[in-house]
Amino acid sequence: MTDSQFARSTAVTRTGESSYSAQIDDAWSIGGVPNGGYLLAILARAALDTTGDPDPLVISGHFTRPPGFGPARVEVELVKRGRQVSTTRVTLWQEDKPRLDALISTGRLPDGGSALEWNDRPAPELPPPDQCTRSEHRAFHVALLDVVEERLDPATSPFRIGPEGKLETAPNGDPTLRGWIRPGDGSDPDPVFLALACDALPPTVFNLGAFGWTPTVELTVIVRARPAAGWLRTETSSASVTGGWFDEGCRLWDSTGRLVAQSRQLALLGTG
Amino acid sequence: MTDSQFARSTAVTRTGESSYSAQIDDAWSIGGVPNGGYLLAILARAALDTTGDPDPLVISGHFTRPPGFGPARVEVELVKRGRQVSTTRVTLWQEDKPRLDALISTGRLPDGGSALEWNDRPAPELPPPDQCTRSEHRAFHVALLDVVEERLDPATSPFRIGPEGKLETAPNGDPTLRGWIRPGDGSDPDPVFLALACDALPPTVFNLGAFGWTPTVELTVIVRARPAAGWLRTETSSASVTGGWFDEGCRLWDSTGRLVAQSRQLALLGTG
Repeated sequence: MTDSQFARSTAVTRTGESSYSAQIDDAWSIGGVPNGGYLLAILARAALDTTGDPDPLVISGHFTRPPGFGPARVEVELVKRGRQVSTTRVTLWQEDKPRLDALISTGRLPDGGSALEWNDRPAPELPPPDQCTRSEHRAFHVALLDVVEERLDPATSPFRIGPEGKLETAPNGDPTLRGWIRPGDGSDPDPVFLALACDALPPTVFNLGAFGWTPTVELTVIVRARPAAGWLRTETSSASVTGGWFDEGCRLWDSTGRLVAQSRQLALLGTG
Repeated sequence: MTDSQFARSTAVTRTGESSYSAQIDDAWSIGGVPNGGYLLAILARAALDTTGDPDPLVISGHFTRPPGFGPARVEVELVKRGRQVSTTRVTLWQEDKPRLDALISTGRLPDGGSALEWNDRPAPELPPPDQCTRSEHRAFHVALLDVVEERLDPATSPFRIGPEGKLETAPNGDPTLRGWIRPGDGSDPDPVFLALACDALPPTVFNLGAFGWTPTVELTVIVRARPAAGWLRTETSSASVTGGWFDEGCRLWDSTGRLVAQSRQLALLGTG
């Protein structure tokens, strides 16, 4: 693990046979709430320490109670230690209440290709990062954007800079966002960073004019490959908004154009 | 719950404060192995009984050890009982070993639309069921097809009937399958049936010529709406096959054309 700000902010310290302590760092927050992908990354660190595996393969997190900043306890139950895949159940506790529960399968990401390699489409074409919009242009303060560099393709951004340089909402009717993302301190993304990166863009439904807070109920991240150094490309999109709920899928590609992660979350439409 | 064969085969009986008994029925199997979506359906029944909620919202299952047929124990831990969403951790045990672990969030599916309704695309156009292929045409015996009616759009099927009426493999190079699915006994699909339906088609990678057994490591099913009576439309597809792994996504639409479920699984490419 490199000594990046992300590594430090997701570090866990073993305190017992199956217990870890962690510090929920307010740097990785949106609107005063810890980012969900950041919390999953902390849980993944504890899972990896327990199984001894190098990489997360699948992280399925169900968010049960809003977590706060500061100290937290992470409990890991080893469900199965396998040759190829090990599975743990990991719970984030604060003040004696579980806040987030995850099943995490770990193992070793493939080092190279295999006899059968196939992709449905290449990484999306994007304007270069310096022609993309810094995505701090949002409805509320996004501390996360001081530690993560995000640049949105202007064609997909739900915001624009108005004539007097003021931020304006500009929903374009299509809940699909594309852009670039990387750690803000210049470090290289590791596989655990992908859990955060899957959950770091503005909600897709902003482009439908739904600018409220959108609490995540469940987020599953599948890691497909170890990312190469440099910018990640990201694309988020929704299949359906119905009855007050929406799904948001994300794909991440590394700087070589390889698909490195896929995720989907179920979230509630904002009300305020 | 209606008295369908599916309801009977997924029934659970409370045996303790947080314990249920279940019977893994060999009718719901493929190649002598219980179907993964069928097992998730059993776990969902136990979750719903524990929370008292009417509907599954998200089921995230990690498959850790191959399960067998016959008696099983289902343990439910109530993580959070909420007004809108309750979350449980549910484990399937056989012979004192956990076989499948799931986090399941339950609640009440929306009854109708809300102010904001949006879908990325309509249900796919398909030939009518009687012009589609019965999908028992596979590499091994699929008992499941006696209890589930499945019809594949011939344009997407990895099989065809050869000149002498014999089954031939015919991978078309595109890991996308479309078709119809419904309970085989003429009963109507309930929300729990969607977990099975998400995992019932031949693997997408058959269309890439990879005809081996493809063990599922993780499967998450998101239920979006209560299905109307009648046939479900289904579409499965893969984004990436790499390093011996593939993802398989599924969407299900009911007979009114409404998207009722989405799923994604991570699986290993078959070796034999």
